[in-house]
Amino acid sequence: MDKRFRPERRIGLALRQSREAVGWSQETLAFESGIHRTYIGAIERGEKNVTIRNIHRIASTLGVSVAEIMQLAEL
Amino acid sequence: MDKRFRPERRIGLALRQSREAVGWSQETLAFESGIHRTYIGAIERGEKNVTIRNIHRIASTLGVSVAEIMQLAEL
Repeated sequence: MDKRFRPERRIGLALRQSREAVGWSQETLAFESGIHRTYIGAIERGEKNVTIRNIHRIASTLGVSVAEIMQLAEL
Repeated sequence: MDKRFRPERRIGLALRQSREAVGWSQETLAFESGIHRTYIGAIERGEKNVTIRNIHRIASTLGVSVAEIMQLAEL
């Protein structure tokens, strides 16, 4: 992870990597988490200053801890 | 950490614990981070659905990683 990346970008990449690790599309994650697909896309692209509730919701849906996502994001 | 606590509450307690570990008041953390003291207080009380940017800003100011905060919060 490039340390120069903004936190949003690093979270987005880590969430995408975690989603792909379980083999899910954005559509599947959206369906399973109840978060809209376009919002998932925007988060993954680092366009959203995502809140702890949404990070927790996505991580829980993917079966990983928020701490694991942060480690992956090197945050 | 009580798993029944909402993520906001658990983050708040973890941030408070991390702040107290460095011996800082909310006022000192507010001054050092540039985040208003009343907002720091609200975050620590679990009243705010804090964003990744603000968690990152507070954690960096306290000299800890976001991942460490999340581990402390058991998130």
